[in-house]
Amino acid sequence: MENMTLAYYAAGAGAIALIFALFTMSQVLKESMGTPKMKQLSEAVQEGAMAYMNRQYKTLIPFAIVVFILLWAAQYFVHVPEGGHLPVGPASAISFLVGAVCSAIAGYIGMNSTTKSNARTAEAARSSGLGKALQVSFRAGAVMGLSVAGLGLLGVSLLYIIFQSPLIINSFAFGASMIAFFARVGGGIYTKAADVGADLVGKVEAGIPEDDPRNPATIADNVGDNVGDTAGMGADLFESYGATTIAGMLIGNTLFGFPGVIFPLLIGAVGIIAAIIGTFTVRTGEGGNPQAALNVGLWTTNVLTAVGTWFVAKAIFPAGQNVIINGQDTGVAFGNVSTGIFMAVLAGLIVNVAVGWLTEYYTANNKPPVLKIAEASKSGPATNVIHGLAVGMESTFIPMLVFAGAIYFSFWAVLTTSPEGQAALWSIYGIAMAAMGMLSTAGMVVAMDSFGPVADNAGGIAEMAELPPEVREKTDKLDAVGNTTAAIAKGFAIGSAALTALALFSAFVDGVKHNPNMIEGLQATGGNFIVNLTDPMVLVGVFIGGAVPFLIGARTMRAVGEAAFGMVEEVRRQFREIPGIMEGTGKPDYARCVDIATRSAISKMIFPGIVAVVVPPIVGFGLGAMALAGFLGGLTTTGVLLALFLANAGGAWDNAKKYIEGGALGGKKSEPHKAAVIGDTVGDPCKDTSGPAMNPLIKVAGTISLILGPLLTRL
Amino acid sequence: MENMTLAYYAAGAGAIALIFALFTMSQVLKESMGTPKMKQLSEAVQEGAMAYMNRQYKTLIPFAIVVFILLWAAQYFVHVPEGGHLPVGPASAISFLVGAVCSAIAGYIGMNSTTKSNARTAEAARSSGLGKALQVSFRAGAVMGLSVAGLGLLGVSLLYIIFQSPLIINSFAFGASMIAFFARVGGGIYTKAADVGADLVGKVEAGIPEDDPRNPATIADNVGDNVGDTAGMGADLFESYGATTIAGMLIGNTLFGFPGVIFPLLIGAVGIIAAIIGTFTVRTGEGGNPQAALNVGLWTTNVLTAVGTWFVAKAIFPAGQNVIINGQDTGVAFGNVSTGIFMAVLAGLIVNVAVGWLTEYYTANNKPPVLKIAEASKSGPATNVIHGLAVGMESTFIPMLVFAGAIYFSFWAVLTTSPEGQAALWSIYGIAMAAMGMLSTAGMVVAMDSFGPVADNAGGIAEMAELPPEVREKTDKLDAVGNTTAAIAKGFAIGSAALTALALFSAFVDGVKHNPNMIEGLQATGGNFIVNLTDPMVLVGVFIGGAVPFLIGARTMRAVGEAAFGMVEEVRRQFREIPGIMEGTGKPDYARCVDIATRSAISKMIFPGIVAVVVPPIVGFGLGAMALAGFLGGLTTTGVLLALFLANAGGAWDNAKKYIEGGALGGKKSEPHKAAVIGDTVGDPCKDTSGPAMNPLIKVAGTISLILGPLLTRL
Repeated sequence: MENMTLAYYAAGAGAIALIFALFTMSQVLKESMGTPKMKQLSEAVQEGAMAYMNRQYKTLIPFAIVVFILLWAAQYFVHVPEGGHLPVGPASAISFLVGAVCSAIAGYIGMNSTTKSNARTAEAARSSGLGKALQVSFRAGAVMGLSVAGLGLLGVSLLYIIFQSPLIINSFAFGASMIAFFARVGGGIYTKAADVGADLVGKVEAGIPEDDPRNPATIADNVGDNVGDTAGMGADLFESYGATTIAGMLIGNTLFGFPGVIFPLLIGAVGIIAAIIGTFTVRTGEGGNPQAALNVGLWTTNVLTAVGTWFVAKAIFPAGQNVIINGQDTGVAFGNVSTGIFMAVLAGLIVNVAVGWLTEYYTANNKPPVLKIAEASKSGPATNVIHGLAVGMESTFIPMLVFAGAIYFSFWAVLTTSPEGQAALWSIYGIAMAAMGMLSTAGMVVAMDSFGPVADNAGGIAEMAELPPEVREKTDKLDAVGNTTAAIAKGFAIGSAALTALALFSAFVDGVKHNPNMIEGLQATGGNFIVNLTDPMVLVGVFIGGAVPFLIGARTMRAVGEAAFGMVEEVRRQFREIPGIMEGTGKPDYARCVDIATRSAISKMIFPGIVAVVVPPIVGFGLGAMALAGFLGGLTTTGVLLALFLANAGGAWDNAKKYIEGGALGGKKSEPHKAAVIGDTVGDPCKDTSGPAMNPLIKVAGTISLILGPLLTRL
Repeated sequence: MENMTLAYYAAGAGAIALIFALFTMSQVLKESMGTPKMKQLSEAVQEGAMAYMNRQYKTLIPFAIVVFILLWAAQYFVHVPEGGHLPVGPASAISFLVGAVCSAIAGYIGMNSTTKSNARTAEAARSSGLGKALQVSFRAGAVMGLSVAGLGLLGVSLLYIIFQSPLIINSFAFGASMIAFFARVGGGIYTKAADVGADLVGKVEAGIPEDDPRNPATIADNVGDNVGDTAGMGADLFESYGATTIAGMLIGNTLFGFPGVIFPLLIGAVGIIAAIIGTFTVRTGEGGNPQAALNVGLWTTNVLTAVGTWFVAKAIFPAGQNVIINGQDTGVAFGNVSTGIFMAVLAGLIVNVAVGWLTEYYTANNKPPVLKIAEASKSGPATNVIHGLAVGMESTFIPMLVFAGAIYFSFWAVLTTSPEGQAALWSIYGIAMAAMGMLSTAGMVVAMDSFGPVADNAGGIAEMAELPPEVREKTDKLDAVGNTTAAIAKGFAIGSAALTALALFSAFVDGVKHNPNMIEGLQATGGNFIVNLTDPMVLVGVFIGGAVPFLIGARTMRAVGEAAFGMVEEVRRQFREIPGIMEGTGKPDYARCVDIATRSAISKMIFPGIVAVVVPPIVGFGLGAMALAGFLGGLTTTGVLLALFLANAGGAWDNAKKYIEGGALGGKKSEPHKAAVIGDTVGDPCKDTSGPAMNPLIKVAGTISLILGPLLTRL
């Protein structure tokens, strides 16, 4: 049943998401931007954000060109088997570029939407109230969310329609990953450098409140929220989306032929439609609870996706039909495997919810972990930091059990529903489909996440434009909800990265199995690529891979420190040299701060980026496929652990500070508060730079290995 | 050539080490303890330390009894194959007990030696000078070092002579591990609770100097140095020593029969003799450099061990002789494998040196990493902490590459020197022998490590007894050297734990292969136990195992915070309620502080200890051998990474503070100094509690799995 119409359906769903996003955008743009002052501030943030995005992508062009040429030219250097395909050559090079460009487009659309909505949200809060403000900010987020999912699905579907082989188009995932890694790291450095610079000199030294227009770094700070939280997270999830879809298609192709390939695309389509419907359910009245409104949207999306998946699975893997691979009837019927596949997708959706809860538990300021950190602030900054580290470390344990449970369950579900003789083989499809299930709702999750920075920015503009305090109160209410949704999205990003990495790993193993260079080597194991942990080469790979996230974590963390230092110097200089800033008669040079943050973020994203992209080929070609497999295993494990540790520690420190600021333990300016501010500053690069860098790190290693798998020259 | 006389030689070397240790002890005891005040202070530390040790071991008795009974009784519940051996039954239970008791005895001897030498070292510094003070303190350390190595070798050799099977005696390693884990965690909590308590109230609040006799926690603090650094490290390396020897014997038995079993014991004997000779070379004059003197001792030991190993390898694996296993001539000659085995041992010795250097680089206060942290202190505690975290994370990378290199080299060395057809099989002996090479010099390394706390304590006693300042200067000089040797020993402990864990892992895999329950399951792979990373069960194990070190790290870190809190409260109470403390007319209640530290350390070591011992059987029996293998892989990788991260971050923070105290960046009481003190306090539980807990954690999981391997009921 090789019915390419189905691929067009998937592409169509992607296109619908994009159209719906553009329509939503046009609706948002109809809203008023408020006073001229508000408009002017919003435009400053927009300009800064676009300037950063332009510079970031311009810097990446040479890298993209090098990879493009390598992918194109590699066909002349590797042995291409008779009638076989390898993931190199013009089609692969083009797929890579499409992935990279789609990632950039998603970033631009999203940034455009969120930066253009901040003043509009503030104005909505001022003129209409909370319900309207939620509507505007959430719609802005939805533009981002649906662009990410829509472009992901449309890109992969179209490439598949054109080239008809998942193997050829797998460099789409690598293109998306490479951009995502740079965007995450660069955006993460930018946002924290600006934040720390603004806080340290403005709040602490000059004693002016957050978002005060007299602070020269305040525009940079608001730009940072967008390039870090919105563009970074969007690129991250775009990458997960693309990579998971392709990994699923690759594995599906080997196991089930066409149905295995088309199914991930259709799940994506189901998820997108569900997310569009979900966005309509997000609404609240004046006294309403925005969190509850968002939860309704998320649950609607989850439930609709689950229901849709059931029908799609039953249709694509019909019990009575035989599996046909490369036109050959294998003589094996699908049997009841559709039920198992459905359950695997369901497992992904459940992980989604579970990880969101857990992240919230460890970072919410009314739960024991954060309260303990706040309590520890009474004996000073050292104990605050110690308890924060402890909360971060502890917060990894149960999520890891959840991931382990999801791996086991999704594998088991397909295993027990497969016909005899196929169980061991087919069951690896389960993990990939769990990942796909999780990511199918990305449209909604990204929407919820992106709404936060819009509300945050709206509050900033309200402050800078000196709107009445009740406006800020409303945006603060939205911002608080945004912190929770950001926590949920962070958990989602980490969880999906973990499952995506495992799906990529399975696909990589599959690629090695079909590598023409390996045929002889694999004869001993009957054609199976066995990554035996007792093999020293595998252990060597595990050790190296396990250490890489620590190296990247260290470098990104230090980069923030150095970039922030430059920002601090500049802000101090402006206060010193520009007369009348504090009195409001002199105008600070916002643009220079934006420029400094941009320059340092760009220059410091290069080293980690190169490490992430270059180490896997070195390990693969230098030590072999076994070592690379071990490398991926080690990297994924410690990468996920560090991601959880850093994100949750940072989130918990942040909320411990907010808890004290809310009046507990002496409130603002008390000794515990000072201690908590130090903890929060330590947490800043953890949660917004180093931690988020882990997700694209493990995925970029996976997507590049996907290309390497069929090319490596020795086991 | 089953010549049991060789085992007697090994036992003899162990006995010589013990006799030499007791003789050295008697020499140390001949030295004068100085003034009555010094004697009295020294006795207070001794009493406190012994009280802690007694309580610790008393608490562990019920645990030991439970395990003893389980091991004894397990023979009635598992199927013992015809003529086969399993690591359960009376002999195993007795071996377990011997391991536990030997570990405790080594701890007692060492503690006795170091706590009885502190006043004597101070007196030597006062009456004779630096050379004599080094002699006394190093001899005290040597007593500990040689007891550890001697008891380890004697214990294993005697058990082997009695039971004649490495499989039966492998619970010796588990006994040693279990005790070591508790000792490390309990000692680590004790030492930091006392330290933080003494510093926070004494130094910061009351403004009195360190080791001031008016501080009620000062005796507890000095006790802590002994129970943490000496007893904890001793138990840790005793465990590594026992576990590596036994893992080597198990693997050697399967591959080479008797020669494979006896060789690790003989390497141990060579190392002990080399260490005894090495101790004689440690001497320095009045103006001399104690560090140089210690280096001579270490290098002498390393070189002699290498030379001795060459001859032993040539004699035990003679090229022309055939391998005889279970009395059956295999028809395969040893060939040139002795050269490969020698090179593997050499690799271990080299790792030893390399990791010491690296640890020193990342933590020494004249090297870039520490200088950067000091520099970052200028902008406050938050940047100090951020840079410290970055240094800690980065410091894992190169050591991991070194370990990976050692794994690869030792494997390759045996591989290329093995006769055709045996290469793949024999090469796993390489990793075990690299671990054995590293640990063979434990006698010397522990001696160097234990000398530090003696010098530290001597300084404390000099201060408390109000000796002239030049005495303190001399002990400070020794103490500074002690910090470097402690860094080297920490690197050694982590490196040896990593290699030991891998040796245990190989032995575990071997155990599963010969598990009678697995015969059917392993038929598909020709009797090989393949731990395929692509198998979901293995991945599940890796994820769970990877998360455990984070959980243990979190709990031990928090335990320090809570225990320190209790101590702070008590010291504050004494200052408040006991009249005349500050004036020197009232006497603080030292004993109560000692008691509080003891109680809280003991009560808080229980949870991590139970997790460490109980999780592996749950994974093994609940999920099977594959999952347990994955678990060990994940646990070892993240355990080693966290051990390096926490130890080096802590060490770097500590030395950044010392660097500033040396006068840089404004010196003591400056703002950077205050920031650095906060960083140092954060680092305290990292480097002295949570970090060191990782080594025994990964080993205890390995040794318990060694027992589980042949007992598990499913793959």
